[in-house]
Amino acid sequence: MHWMTPDVARPRRGSPPTSRTSPPPRRPPRRDGEQGPSGHAVGFVLVHAGAGYHSESKAKEYKHVCKRACQRAVEKLKAGAMAVDAVTAALVELEDSPFTNAGTGSNLNLSGEIECDASIMDGKSLHFGAVGALSGIKNPVLVANRLLQEAQKGKLSAGRIPPCFLVGKGAYHWAVHHGIPPCPSDKMATKFSLSAYKRNKRKMELAEKAESEYKQAKKRRQSSENGGLVDPAPQPDDDSGSLDTVGAIVVDGEGNVAAAVSSGGLAMKHPGRVGQAAHYGCGCWAENAWNLNPYSTAVSTSGCGEHLVRTMLARECSTAVQSEDAHQNLLETMQNKFISSPFLASEDCVLGGVIVLRCCKCVDTQPPQDIQALLVEFLWSHTTESMCVGYMSAQDGKAKTHISRLPAGAVAGQSLAIEGGVCRLGNLVD
Amino acid sequence: MHWMTPDVARPRRGSPPTSRTSPPPRRPPRRDGEQGPSGHAVGFVLVHAGAGYHSESKAKEYKHVCKRACQRAVEKLKAGAMAVDAVTAALVELEDSPFTNAGTGSNLNLSGEIECDASIMDGKSLHFGAVGALSGIKNPVLVANRLLQEAQKGKLSAGRIPPCFLVGKGAYHWAVHHGIPPCPSDKMATKFSLSAYKRNKRKMELAEKAESEYKQAKKRRQSSENGGLVDPAPQPDDDSGSLDTVGAIVVDGEGNVAAAVSSGGLAMKHPGRVGQAAHYGCGCWAENAWNLNPYSTAVSTSGCGEHLVRTMLARECSTAVQSEDAHQNLLETMQNKFISSPFLASEDCVLGGVIVLRCCKCVDTQPPQDIQALLVEFLWSHTTESMCVGYMSAQDGKAKTHISRLPAGAVAGQSLAIEGGVCRLGNLVD
Repeated sequence: MHWMTPDVARPRRGSPPTSRTSPPPRRPPRRDGEQGPSGHAVGFVLVHAGAGYHSESKAKEYKHVCKRACQRAVEKLKAGAMAVDAVTAALVELEDSPFTNAGTGSNLNLSGEIECDASIMDGKSLHFGAVGALSGIKNPVLVANRLLQEAQKGKLSAGRIPPCFLVGKGAYHWAVHHGIPPCPSDKMATKFSLSAYKRNKRKMELAEKAESEYKQAKKRRQSSENGGLVDPAPQPDDDSGSLDTVGAIVVDGEGNVAAAVSSGGLAMKHPGRVGQAAHYGCGCWAENAWNLNPYSTAVSTSGCGEHLVRTMLARECSTAVQSEDAHQNLLETMQNKFISSPFLASEDCVLGGVIVLRCCKCVDTQPPQDIQALLVEFLWSHTTESMCVGYMSAQDGKAKTHISRLPAGAVAGQSLAIEGGVCRLGNLVD
Repeated sequence: MHWMTPDVARPRRGSPPTSRTSPPPRRPPRRDGEQGPSGHAVGFVLVHAGAGYHSESKAKEYKHVCKRACQRAVEKLKAGAMAVDAVTAALVELEDSPFTNAGTGSNLNLSGEIECDASIMDGKSLHFGAVGALSGIKNPVLVANRLLQEAQKGKLSAGRIPPCFLVGKGAYHWAVHHGIPPCPSDKMATKFSLSAYKRNKRKMELAEKAESEYKQAKKRRQSSENGGLVDPAPQPDDDSGSLDTVGAIVVDGEGNVAAAVSSGGLAMKHPGRVGQAAHYGCGCWAENAWNLNPYSTAVSTSGCGEHLVRTMLARECSTAVQSEDAHQNLLETMQNKFISSPFLASEDCVLGGVIVLRCCKCVDTQPPQDIQALLVEFLWSHTTESMCVGYMSAQDGKAKTHISRLPAGAVAGQSLAIEGGVCRLGNLVD
């Protein structure tokens, strides 16, 4: 396998450019050093550790967890697992990292509790499983995956339809009943998440006090017909931990795709708040190719849940890359259906990121024989300061990781970066 | 105002017909008896009391509650309320009926508790509010509406983003904190819902016992190499109460649309299960006309939540009726993106229903002056045995109600009915 030139690695800002990248060839020429049929497992994984702000000091940790997550998925693929199991393995690794805002290390809510959202989609069966506001389970993605697996078995006793989305206490009891062990919430909190909670709480109290004083002063001055007040409420710092939702997308040796996402949600969210990570079409999307869709696609999102929900960003990005020029169409979708979406007209700062892959089967006609291969195009795009990604194929020795950043001077929430690459996976299982 | 011939009232089954109804005229000719500019409020409401099975004996009650719901919405419109408040008023009436599966009279879950889902969307602001698995609140739609209203006010203290979707206990506490009074769950249960719960529980126990005996017998016989067992598990009766989700769609005098939906969920659902009524794009959709969409559209759905979620039926129907021939496109969407959806390939019985309206402004150039009017086309379609609807304009004296049924011999879950009409509302507020 080789990595083709990532010709789409051009950060952008403002309105979509008029220039277009040429579509990748369906049958790229074999290059020196490329592996032919090897008998090894085929597959590809792309993970993200959130779209948000990754300081240089944290970069190493984020890259490291992305690398491990890719390795877990590839181990599964090499053992013959399907995409949906490989994507779950990657998510477990990402959730277990105390540095990400998912599973262990999740943001605490207003009451100081951890409530997680997660979902998974299988592009082959098109089944979906999701949990929202789930406490007391170390790996929420395992519950989402189990919901998906159970739903695939068909109806419950007396013809009842199995659930695809469970929340709160009900989700917890369902998980435990299905053999997923409970985990005390205090074991999922970290020194970092606890101190961030205390800092945020203090910040909120100060803001509320200032806002209340401002309102009272305004009232008094209005009654004596004076104006010209400046809002003295403290502006919140950019909380680097608040948007680090994690996710992964995978294509397996049979060409099936799967996607998953997991999040501790916004810091200081109201208890019971459910974000995009549990929302169908918003947190993740996976859809194998079928007669109307020439490509198999998988998407996972990160960022401000409310923005990602109201724009249904995962499904929109999946639809976008069904068109011939995936890069150009994803760029236009991020610009027109996210940053400039009429659904977010009242928002001055639209924060999110996506990882996307699409793939199609292609036949390499070079001797010694016709080889069916998978052409995988992968992209990431974000409107946040940065986004940390990792990727690896089952034929690679180790994962590549990268922290994508907005170009200098670009304004987060109003500009975007988009990068990616193409690879060809040989020796496909038919 | 007059009711045009409901020329689209043709039940269908099987594949989409090749015949097409002609698109409604943008400027229908004035007819005898039509009201001209009257100074009265303008607006239109269409409600449903669920797609499911409505026996003749229950028909009167369902029609009656639909009528009252229409009247509540029209009262609001006449008082100058916007679509989003009128749709909320209709929903409160539908939730308060002990005969519908929403609010009071909701299905009980596996633990014998009531957990409700509801959502609302405002076509003008495109804001959305939703609650899932909410217990202890008499009118879940009021919480969804309040979430929408609060989100429209902008950010919370310290720059926090307000939630659009709350579930479980967190949703309950948020509601009470925002002045929505709690209601003991036992006051929301009815004699009917309690007896249905006992009957369903018994049915489930019998089914599980039979399934377990069947499996054991199969094991024994397989070990002695015998076969030919017939599954003796009792088939559940068609539970007429299980799908009666309620909803409403409204266009107001300014041409704004809104949609809402509320549900007690499937009978004997797992605690924490959230269905389409709380899912963005699945339970309801409302979108005012803008440059890419010539029509304002509003949709509310009913039926099996998992089927409606996985097909995102509300949004799909909204997209469908942006095309010129609303009836034909809705019919094709119900057939191709619901009954035959690849997302439900494993389901042999796809149960759901929708109410849809679309409207556009038109100018009547007849003397004495140019009058700006609203042309409203409204449709309902269902794959369930029946669907109960009601509709009324602000200029009508009373609502019309109707129980739509599949044609004789049509198979529920595999066939569909589609009906509707067109009306022109004069004297539009510009």
